[in-house]
Amino acid sequence: MSRTPAVNGERLLARLAAFAAIGATPKGGVDRQALTAGDREARRLLADLAAARGFAVLQDEAANLFVRREGTDPSLPPLLLGSHLDTQPKGGRFDGTLGVLAAFEVLEALEDVGARPARAVEAVAWTNEEGSRFQPGAFGSQAFAGGTIPSEWREAQDRDGMRLSDELRATLAALPQAKSRPLGIPLAAYLELHIEQGPALEAEDVAIGAVTGIQATRWLEVSFTGRPAHAGTTPLAFRRDPLVAAVAVLGELHRSIMPADGDARLTVGRIAAEPGSINVVPERVAFTLDLRHPDDARLAAIDATVREICARHAAAAGCRMEVTVLSNMRSAAFPESVVTLVETAAARSGLSCRRIVSGAFHDALFLSRVAASGMIFVPCRDGISHNEAEDVAPAASIDGATALLNAAVDYLELAGAPERNARA
Amino acid sequence: MSRTPAVNGERLLARLAAFAAIGATPKGGVDRQALTAGDREARRLLADLAAARGFAVLQDEAANLFVRREGTDPSLPPLLLGSHLDTQPKGGRFDGTLGVLAAFEVLEALEDVGARPARAVEAVAWTNEEGSRFQPGAFGSQAFAGGTIPSEWREAQDRDGMRLSDELRATLAALPQAKSRPLGIPLAAYLELHIEQGPALEAEDVAIGAVTGIQATRWLEVSFTGRPAHAGTTPLAFRRDPLVAAVAVLGELHRSIMPADGDARLTVGRIAAEPGSINVVPERVAFTLDLRHPDDARLAAIDATVREICARHAAAAGCRMEVTVLSNMRSAAFPESVVTLVETAAARSGLSCRRIVSGAFHDALFLSRVAASGMIFVPCRDGISHNEAEDVAPAASIDGATALLNAAVDYLELAGAPERNARA
Repeated sequence: MSRTPAVNGERLLARLAAFAAIGATPKGGVDRQALTAGDREARRLLADLAAARGFAVLQDEAANLFVRREGTDPSLPPLLLGSHLDTQPKGGRFDGTLGVLAAFEVLEALEDVGARPARAVEAVAWTNEEGSRFQPGAFGSQAFAGGTIPSEWREAQDRDGMRLSDELRATLAALPQAKSRPLGIPLAAYLELHIEQGPALEAEDVAIGAVTGIQATRWLEVSFTGRPAHAGTTPLAFRRDPLVAAVAVLGELHRSIMPADGDARLTVGRIAAEPGSINVVPERVAFTLDLRHPDDARLAAIDATVREICARHAAAAGCRMEVTVLSNMRSAAFPESVVTLVETAAARSGLSCRRIVSGAFHDALFLSRVAASGMIFVPCRDGISHNEAEDVAPAASIDGATALLNAAVDYLELAGAPERNARA
Repeated sequence: MSRTPAVNGERLLARLAAFAAIGATPKGGVDRQALTAGDREARRLLADLAAARGFAVLQDEAANLFVRREGTDPSLPPLLLGSHLDTQPKGGRFDGTLGVLAAFEVLEALEDVGARPARAVEAVAWTNEEGSRFQPGAFGSQAFAGGTIPSEWREAQDRDGMRLSDELRATLAALPQAKSRPLGIPLAAYLELHIEQGPALEAEDVAIGAVTGIQATRWLEVSFTGRPAHAGTTPLAFRRDPLVAAVAVLGELHRSIMPADGDARLTVGRIAAEPGSINVVPERVAFTLDLRHPDDARLAAIDATVREICARHAAAAGCRMEVTVLSNMRSAAFPESVVTLVETAAARSGLSCRRIVSGAFHDALFLSRVAASGMIFVPCRDGISHNEAEDVAPAASIDGATALLNAAVDYLELAGAPERNARA
C-alpha cells in the first residue's frame, strides 16, 4: 500500500461523541436498549457513515448490521471486526460502541491509504448483546453462530409486553438501504475490541489486554412460593413467608460464595414479591442470580451449592422452591495464534500489553465457535461499567483502535495475495 | 315493634355470593381494588338494593357510600354500621364486604318488622380501606374523621399512573342517584362487623370477638443506594451492593423482631432492585416494612431498632440509606360501654364471646376518634385473609350479623324515644 494505515484519533473520538448522544441520559450515560428507536437511530448513523465512504451495508435476519470494505478477491471469507451498539438501561458510552466504531475506523484507515488486501474487511454491530430488554443476551451473535433464531427467542417479551419478533421486524424495516444476507456466513477470523469492564488493566497501568478467554456465565431465576396472609394478624407460627426463605438464601450466598473464591461472581440484579401489597405477607418471591467463574467445573459446583441452600431454606420456611436456568454459557478459550496476533500488534504500536481472562461474556464468545476469534481490552476508569459513570480515557480508546488496526493489517498481510504490495 | 327483628340468613348469604361475583378471581377470591370499575359495580349494587327497600342513598366527597333508614326523629345523629367493599389485589370474599352487607341486613331486619326507632340507622361502605392501589389505606374513614381530604392524598397515583382524584371523581359520577352529603356528619355511635383475619377465635372455637382495641401500625419504606457495576467483572472489594445491605438487614430483622416478641408483627410486602438487569449490580434497592404492635411504645422501640440495623448494614456495604414513614397509626382503645354492648348482644343471642385486640387496622380505628365506636369479630378459616383462600363458615357470617343486629337494637332501645314501643 501507498502508506501505512493509521487511526485518525480525532475522527474516532468525534464518532464516539456522536453515538453517545443517541439515547444520552442526564447523568452522562446512555440508554439505548436493543431494538428500540434509539438502537435504530444508531444503526442508521452507522449505515450513513458507511455509505459516505462507499462501503456496502448488509443485515441478516437477526438484524446484525455489517459494513463491508471489499477486497481484491471477493470470494475469500472476510476478516470480521466489531462489537454491539445496544446498551443497558443505565449504560455507558463505550461498552460495545467503542468496538463497533474502532472496527469502522479500521475500514476507514485502510480506505484512507488505498490499501488493497485480497480479503474483504467487515465491521459488525451485533444485535442485543446486553439482554436487558429481551433475553437471551448476545442474541445476534448466538443466532449468527447457530445459523438460526430459535422460535422461543422470537416470542420473548420485554416488560411492556412488546414481542422481540415484532421489534426485530420493525428494526430491519427501518434500514431499507441495507442488503439482506443469510445468517452465519463463512469467516476468516473475528476480532473484537472492548473495554475491560473491570479494574485490572487500570490498576496495573497496562494499555492493552490480550484476552485469552471468557469465563463461564450462568443465569438462574429462583422463586419461592408460600402462603399469602394478613400482615397484621398472622402470627409467626402461621406464616409461610417466601421472602423469609429468599432472604435466608441470599444471606448465606453473600457470606459464602464470593468471600470463599476470588474468581467467583454472584449478583442478584432483580427481585420482586407478589402480590406486592405493603400489608400482605407475599405469596411468591422471585430473584435472579448471575453466577460466573473462569472454570466450568467450579461454576457447576456453585450452581449445585445454590440449589442445596435454596432447598434447605425453602423447607425451613414451608415454601415451594423453583430454580430455572435462564442462560448457561460455557467458558471459551481463544486460539493462541489470535492471542499472539494481538500481543504482536500491541508491541509494534509500542503499547504495554498483558494477557487477561474476560470477566464478562461477549459476542466473541459465540463467534469463537465458528471462527478463529480473539479480543482486545482497554482499561476503563475504576473498572466501572453497566453504569452511566462508565468512562474511558481518549488515549485508551485510540490505543485500542490502533492495536485493532495493526492486528488486522498483520492478519491481512499473512493472508494477503502476493500482488497486493505490487499494486500499492 | 311488632316482632323482634331477626337476621335473614339466606338473604345475607345470597348477598355475600352476589358481591363475591364482582371481581371474582379464578382461585375463588376477589380482586376489587378501590375506585376501580369493579368497586363502582359493587357500590351500584348496594345502591340498587337500598332503593328497592326505599332507603336513602348518600355519598360524600371521599366517595364514602351511606344507606340511611330514617328514624322518627331525623334530627338525632344516626347509629352508623358498616365496613368497606374494596379488596386486596388477591383478596377474599369477606374482608370488609361482610361488615357492609351485615350492616345492610340490620337495616332490612328493622324494616322487615316495621321497627320505628327514633334514631336513623345507616349502613356505610368506606372508600379504599385496603390502600393497596392508592395510599393511604382507610382513605374514606380517615377523610370522614378528619373532615377533609388532604391535597397530597388527591395526588396519589397507582402503579399505572392513574391519579386518585380522577378515579374519585369518576366513582362519584358513576352513582348519580346518590345524594351528596358533607364529610364527617355527627354520629351517635359506630359499629363494625369484620372477620378476625387471625387464628385466635377459630382456635378457641369462639363465635364472637368483642374487640377492645386496635394495635398500632407503622409502614416504612427503606432504601439503600450503592454503586451499579458489571456483574461479571466487578470483584467483591469493588462492589457497593445495596442488595447485600438489604438482605443483611432483613435477615437480622427476621431473626430478632417477631421471634423475640409474640405480639410484634413485621412484614416485607414489596421489594425491588434498580435498574433491574440480571447482569448489573443494583444501584438501588427499596423495600417496605409493615410493623405492628398493640403497644405504641413497643412499636416505637421496634422502629428505632429497624433504623439502627439499617444504618449499620448500610455503612458495612458502603451504601446510602433512607427510611421514609409511609403511614403511622396509633393504637386505639374502644370505650368499655361499646365493648359491653357487644358482649351483651352476643350473650342474648346465645353466642360464645371473648374480648380480643385487633391485629389489623380498620375503619373503626379512625371512627373511634369522632364517635363511640366498637367492633365485632367472627372467625375465619385458618386465620387466612388478604388471600383468595379466605373463607368464613356460613353460620359464622350469620352469627356476626345477629350480634351486630342485637347490639344495634340494644343501642337503639337505650337511645330510643319513649313513644317508640307504644307505636310498635
